[in-house]
Amino acid sequence: MSDTKNINISDDFLFSPEPRQREIAKKLFALVAHLPLVCPHGHVDPRLFAENRPFPDPTELLIIPDHYLFRMLYSQGIPMESLGVPRADGGSTESDRLKIWQIVADNFYLFRGTPTGLWLKRELSQVFGINKRLTGASAREIYDEIAAALQKPENLPRAMFERFNIEVLSTTDSPIDTLEHHKKIRQSGWKGRVVPAFRPDNVTDFNFRTWRQNIDTLSHVSGIDCSNYYGFIQALRDRRLAFKEMGATSTDHGVFSPFTIEMSEREASQLFEKAIKGHATADDAALFTGHILMVMAEMSIEDGLTMQIHPGVFRNHNDVVLHKFGLDKGCDIPVATDFVRNLKPLLNKFGNDPRLNLIVFTLDETTYSRELAPLAGHYPAMKLGPAWWFNDSREGMLRFREMTTESAGFYNTVGFIDDTRAFPSIPARHEVARRIDCRFLAGLVAEHILDLDEAEEVIVDLAYNLAKKNYKF
Amino acid sequence: MSDTKNINISDDFLFSPEPRQREIAKKLFALVAHLPLVCPHGHVDPRLFAENRPFPDPTELLIIPDHYLFRMLYSQGIPMESLGVPRADGGSTESDRLKIWQIVADNFYLFRGTPTGLWLKRELSQVFGINKRLTGASAREIYDEIAAALQKPENLPRAMFERFNIEVLSTTDSPIDTLEHHKKIRQSGWKGRVVPAFRPDNVTDFNFRTWRQNIDTLSHVSGIDCSNYYGFIQALRDRRLAFKEMGATSTDHGVFSPFTIEMSEREASQLFEKAIKGHATADDAALFTGHILMVMAEMSIEDGLTMQIHPGVFRNHNDVVLHKFGLDKGCDIPVATDFVRNLKPLLNKFGNDPRLNLIVFTLDETTYSRELAPLAGHYPAMKLGPAWWFNDSREGMLRFREMTTESAGFYNTVGFIDDTRAFPSIPARHEVARRIDCRFLAGLVAEHILDLDEAEEVIVDLAYNLAKKNYKF
Amino acid sequence: MSDTKNINISDDFLFSPEPRQREIAKKLFALVAHLPLVCPHGHVDPRLFAENRPFPDPTELLIIPDHYLFRMLYSQGIPMESLGVPRADGGSTESDRLKIWQIVADNFYLFRGTPTGLWLKRELSQVFGINKRLTGASAREIYDEIAAALQKPENLPRAMFERFNIEVLSTTDSPIDTLEHHKKIRQSGWKGRVVPAFRPDNVTDFNFRTWRQNIDTLSHVSGIDCSNYYGFIQALRDRRLAFKEMGATSTDHGVFSPFTIEMSEREASQLFEKAIKGHATADDAALFTGHILMVMAEMSIEDGLTMQIHPGVFRNHNDVVLHKFGLDKGCDIPVATDFVRNLKPLLNKFGNDPRLNLIVFTLDETTYSRELAPLAGHYPAMKLGPAWWFNDSREGMLRFREMTTESAGFYNTVGFIDDTRAFPSIPARHEVARRIDCRFLAGLVAEHILDLDEAEEVIVDLAYNLAKKNYKF
Repeated sequence: MSDTKNINISDDFLFSPEPRQREIAKKLFALVAHLPLVCPHGHVDPRLFAENRPFPDPTELLIIPDHYLFRMLYSQGIPMESLGVPRADGGSTESDRLKIWQIVADNFYLFRGTPTGLWLKRELSQVFGINKRLTGASAREIYDEIAAALQKPENLPRAMFERFNIEVLSTTDSPIDTLEHHKKIRQSGWKGRVVPAFRPDNVTDFNFRTWRQNIDTLSHVSGIDCSNYYGFIQALRDRRLAFKEMGATSTDHGVFSPFTIEMSEREASQLFEKAIKGHATADDAALFTGHILMVMAEMSIEDGLTMQIHPGVFRNHNDVVLHKFGLDKGCDIPVATDFVRNLKPLLNKFGNDPRLNLIVFTLDETTYSRELAPLAGHYPAMKLGPAWWFNDSREGMLRFREMTTESAGFYNTVGFIDDTRAFPSIPARHEVARRIDCRFLAGLVAEHILDLDEAEEVIVDLAYNLAKKNYKF
Repeated sequence: MSDTKNINISDDFLFSPEPRQREIAKKLFALVAHLPLVCPHGHVDPRLFAENRPFPDPTELLIIPDHYLFRMLYSQGIPMESLGVPRADGGSTESDRLKIWQIVADNFYLFRGTPTGLWLKRELSQVFGINKRLTGASAREIYDEIAAALQKPENLPRAMFERFNIEVLSTTDSPIDTLEHHKKIRQSGWKGRVVPAFRPDNVTDFNFRTWRQNIDTLSHVSGIDCSNYYGFIQALRDRRLAFKEMGATSTDHGVFSPFTIEMSEREASQLFEKAIKGHATADDAALFTGHILMVMAEMSIEDGLTMQIHPGVFRNHNDVVLHKFGLDKGCDIPVATDFVRNLKPLLNKFGNDPRLNLIVFTLDETTYSRELAPLAGHYPAMKLGPAWWFNDSREGMLRFREMTTESAGFYNTVGFIDDTRAFPSIPARHEVARRIDCRFLAGLVAEHILDLDEAEEVIVDLAYNLAKKNYKF
Repeated sequence: MSDTKNINISDDFLFSPEPRQREIAKKLFALVAHLPLVCPHGHVDPRLFAENRPFPDPTELLIIPDHYLFRMLYSQGIPMESLGVPRADGGSTESDRLKIWQIVADNFYLFRGTPTGLWLKRELSQVFGINKRLTGASAREIYDEIAAALQKPENLPRAMFERFNIEVLSTTDSPIDTLEHHKKIRQSGWKGRVVPAFRPDNVTDFNFRTWRQNIDTLSHVSGIDCSNYYGFIQALRDRRLAFKEMGATSTDHGVFSPFTIEMSEREASQLFEKAIKGHATADDAALFTGHILMVMAEMSIEDGLTMQIHPGVFRNHNDVVLHKFGLDKGCDIPVATDFVRNLKPLLNKFGNDPRLNLIVFTLDETTYSRELAPLAGHYPAMKLGPAWWFNDSREGMLRFREMTTESAGFYNTVGFIDDTRAFPSIPARHEVARRIDCRFLAGLVAEHILDLDEAEEVIVDLAYNLAKKNYKF
């Protein structure tokens, strides 16, 4: 493997090597490089900002919560235990932080050409001023540098938030969450804007492992008896308002399929009752989810929360890992998804109402040009979410623009979401997205499709204005 | 929004900014820029040329018939009524032409990076000599310039046809159309070649709203009793010949699925009888369409008409718009389409017969490299239609060449079709297509995959010869 | 058509025309241009090397076995008989070798922009030193040059093998093959490493036309009664070991679908019995194939053979050609394929075991970024095979890297396979693959995603090390 050496971080990073386009891209990037970060969708733990304690160590900060990192290492035969991934049964895993860091560094060549590799490299440089390449040889030195940096006041969570120039950061929260950390942040007097988002999957999906128990918790949190459909719906309505009071501007729905269906309250109530009794089938769960999306769209028209649908993931594909390590361990795999038929009931009922702001995401890129751009380029209520998860990458974001712009334009897209639980990677993620959009626009200018002044307007919209507008910040 | 300014229309428009490729592309484009336009498939109204009256005004000419334009504006919350789109119930909509024009101009930034934006910009420049950017500020001035130009003899429909250097233009017509306008054009002594194409969907698809009534009209027009299957088939055969006498060289089939099936006349007759009685189901309609495609292929072998299949569109996805404004209002959405299994019966029966010339189109780009290029690269009867509808765009056409050339070659494709009802956009559409093919070929030459003289031959074939050959002009 | 002229074969062949990337690509290619060829998967006839006789003539060598060539010619209306493709009924076809060659040359313009065109051009130059363009005019001269060359000792199969710098070549062989040619090669004392691969489709797929007869042959070859399931499985296990003794390091499974299923031995035995009695349905065959893939994975863990799955082809789509000319005549068409649900049973049972080395291929490019890269980027046992068949091409290989690298990295891919029966095309195929990888990596370096020294390491891995490692040579 390569020796330790300084990383060449160039101003030209990610721009086309063709000189004319590169110059245009640099001009465009100068307009947005220092704009505040709008972060309308992510999974950062609000406790960070409520407590504002120093991050414990480099491994805890950068490695353990990052399933992008350990999924790749695992794919090459490195056991998750050796990376300190906690076991579901509480059994022992590697606890020596430096040892884990060393494994990652020894194998960091595996991340060549991946977004994880790009982000981490950029993060070391931008957040911690480390411009050395992470290798087996440099691992210890870099670990120590970061560990030392984490003790400094400028690297406390709130200080980082301010340094990163974050204008607003949305977390993702369940209806049964009491939003204690959000309350604490608000009460602290700190000016950083951290808001929740309403993600009700764990109470709307009968398949959710702890669904029955979550319903009880929902009753408790909402003060409404949720053991019947009408109470349940009222509790959802109330919790949305409670979230809104805490600053929420959006909901999020991580459904398997974007299936929607027109259903009477009576039918919905019967399904719910069946589920409460423990008799609901997988089909019942799918039907109910299809109905709940309709209800959520209707409530969004009432309360104004932007509605996000994130479908198309086969969750926890690997049973062995699921049983040993639990949920969200890098075993989620995208599947082919049909939006045209599935979203028709919802779009026909609510899609012509401009009060609804529905943002649809996909992991199935084949739907960009075939389904989603044509749908977003027609229905007033629907917008197209950015390249997401596996596609939040250089190639993935370029393909997104190439396959959506011509049918949906730029103005039916909604800006960037970082969707991360890795807080210090946020600036790197936004930088990559902004650079890729600059690159794409530079191509259009160089080919005389847009004039430079048009591209200058568009890049500011993509980097900043569209996220603010669509997520109502 | 940007101020009024002159548009920079460059000779380099759409070519790679890399200088070597750009030079090659310019050389290639010089060979085809002035070749006559062959327009084998489109939706221009033949009445234009039969009557040869001045176009009424800029809005009527450029905005109202263009569902690309109003679908995008509608997607951003602008009501169709305010754009003068006629209502199905005859209710009032905006009638002030200049007011409509102003809305389009105010929002023309929405079309950045879209083909609609490119075409309109190019059209203003090439057809009307207007090199100003269309903005809110310039709207009135540009409107007035076009309105004045439309009064000049050189902008009468026939004069435009000649100015555009159109060699032949095919319209699209139903079997129940008596082709009056076509007859009038022929009788007028005008030399412009305008021909019909035979598109029987409204009599072959039981689902068509006015199907039963169309069958009666078909009886009337053909002079054959079409209330039974055998009469119906004979009428189709006769109408094809009548179309052929009026210059038609092709048929077109806008089916939902490319499903085909071998069926006995007896079975087909029973399905038809059921439909006549009003008892046909959706499945019956699909079966019958699958059978009719077989019959049409057989008739094409007899009468030599090139056969086109345009499948894969979920028509009128938006019920609200359908009920309020009727068909073809920008609410058609592509769906995933399987050609391999669906076309097998037809290809097995007729696909080895070089007398059949079957051109297959798709809106599902995933089928380019997986299905259509391999099929067209094997069956003698089958050719691959160009990037169509949502994909008739810079990126869409590049992807088409990238994903089809290696398996099907250039010579199993058929040149460009503009497929438009917006007559004055025709030169711009052909120019974009020719430039993109030049761009693609320039890349192959610059990478030493083709020699320049080979690319020079290919570009003339793509821009002119292949359309003439495959559509038998 | 173009006149005879010298072909411009450039050092820049296939590299980006942008100068900076081109320079980097040339530097990278210098590192791998002369590395030995590792050929882990292909269809070269081992008899060539067992007998080491001169190739009979240019047409027999280059045209007749190449279904890429005659599928394209056939698609343009040239009868297969005129190309000397043997008829199933033994009827007469063109036997004049020069006449066939002339047809190919006359129509060689059809292959512009196709891999077949590139390979043949490169092959003529590299293997036979012919730098003239193949046209109608040059056909005879080139034919004569090749014919003369084929008489020289340096063009005997074994001498070519050595000239090509082939380190190892795997053929593909059926379990009922006695591997006579492989034995003869080994006994000959020649040092060339030619090994078999175990492809059991013709005994595991009940649909195979001669399945019942193949089972008898398997009994004969293995010395085990295969008329019952347990004997059949034992025979497979034994034949795998016999193949391994002959140097095999891999198995190959050309299944229609990657469907896998957990099934008891009892159920499997009942299906097998039904098939032996001639009563198995198409569903039974699919179930049994899904079971056999599980058995094969388990045996691979035992005996260490790398397991390849090549799904997603609708074989012999054209019944007319199938009846007239038999199997493998260019009528195989890819279909959409789901890997996420189909491979789940196999991956859940064996995918976490690093002793299994499972290489999965696809012809459905939509699965690259959606399914296969995420799966290979997670399961330790699974690797992603290279762009295959219709996608073994400039654009196809670029898309492969663009759509897989960011989720799977480079190190979950396995290098190049040439998959050819056209022995003299092997160097050209490897050259194209190596050049495309250099091109891709040069882009990453020019955009500051990788440093040059990282790309230098990766290119050697892609061109050489990964194939050796994953195929255990």
